[in-house]
Amino acid sequence: MLDAVSTTDGTGDETVIGRRGLQPKGVARRQEILDRAIEVFRERGADGTSLRRIAEAIGVSHAALLHYFDSREQLLVAVYAHAEIQRNASADPAVTPGVDTMIDAAIANVDVPGLVQLYTTLLAASLEAGNDVGREFFSARFERVRDELTSSFRRQQADGDIRDDVPAEELAALLIAASDGLQIQWLLEPSIGLSETLRTFGRLLQPPR
Amino acid sequence: MLDAVSTTDGTGDETVIGRRGLQPKGVARRQEILDRAIEVFRERGADGTSLRRIAEAIGVSHAALLHYFDSREQLLVAVYAHAEIQRNASADPAVTPGVDTMIDAAIANVDVPGLVQLYTTLLAASLEAGNDVGREFFSARFERVRDELTSSFRRQQADGDIRDDVPAEELAALLIAASDGLQIQWLLEPSIGLSETLRTFGRLLQPPR
Repeated sequence: MLDAVSTTDGTGDETVIGRRGLQPKGVARRQEILDRAIEVFRERGADGTSLRRIAEAIGVSHAALLHYFDSREQLLVAVYAHAEIQRNASADPAVTPGVDTMIDAAIANVDVPGLVQLYTTLLAASLEAGNDVGREFFSARFERVRDELTSSFRRQQADGDIRDDVPAEELAALLIAASDGLQIQWLLEPSIGLSETLRTFGRLLQPPR
Repeated sequence: MLDAVSTTDGTGDETVIGRRGLQPKGVARRQEILDRAIEVFRERGADGTSLRRIAEAIGVSHAALLHYFDSREQLLVAVYAHAEIQRNASADPAVTPGVDTMIDAAIANVDVPGLVQLYTTLLAASLEAGNDVGREFFSARFERVRDELTSSFRRQQADGDIRDDVPAEELAALLIAASDGLQIQWLLEPSIGLSETLRTFGRLLQPPR
């Protein structure tokens, strides 16, 4: 669930998740539904709930939800993408992401266990055959985040801020992997020190003195 | 899916996954079913298949499968545990696991994409409410592997083989996380260099010169 601080302008992925060709009013209504869904998931998670139950929890009719989203899976991916765009929009685009900034972003996610769980569940579901919505979303997301982190690590290597004896693109894949994997361990065992352990990963990247 | 080289004697977890109180003949039959299931998953994965479909693929009746396992979930966890015990049994118990040994073990898993996917799917499912079989299995598994790796890292720190400026237990959690997380990225994008990237993690642990 780690994301690099991004300059995404807030009109990104979410507009293509869910039914296309909505009128402006429909787009606004879909945003409202996603905002409300995020609150519900923050509180309760998305555990095994059907689209009908989610509709009840959000306070819209099942039919209304089906007007905006083809399936439960499509809604859940849209909720996660929407939450991510909100987070990115609140980040300062002038800040060049450093290792600490990126680790801070990962740690911020932990404030919302329901979304961490949603992320992990969607990610695993995306690996199953036939799940095209999830697979496309996560494939594109990993590629984008790896690219952003790689560029950032390259700059930091050039500046002597992190070690340059390992390829930046491998460090990027490793930081994302460490964040994803630690979140899983932490969901099963909350005594895992998620923040401290991610910071320790940051220390492994410090240049030798 | 990373596991430390373990001295597990091959009579471990699997005997408690599935129905209890079987006669010796029943235990042997259950082992046969698990052996056959592993082959099937190696070839095809477990994607969205019902217990009935799995029974067909394995070549046993649905009723017979239900005699040994309460649910699809219980069968899948048993299959994964069985595969893991087989791997551990083939490891040399005299070898003290080093970083390289452990990374080799993780890389060996990649030979069996169906099982990597099974692991990731089961792991995510274990995070869902109500999935007690999966949650117990993975909680115990993470704790055991973290403990084994921590002991091993402590020894290597004492011997000067890896850096000792970070806690061994955090390195253990990070190595498992990196392995789990990279496997996910690799399932979505096979061009990710899984082995090389895990080896790069090993290089981050080398003591400063």
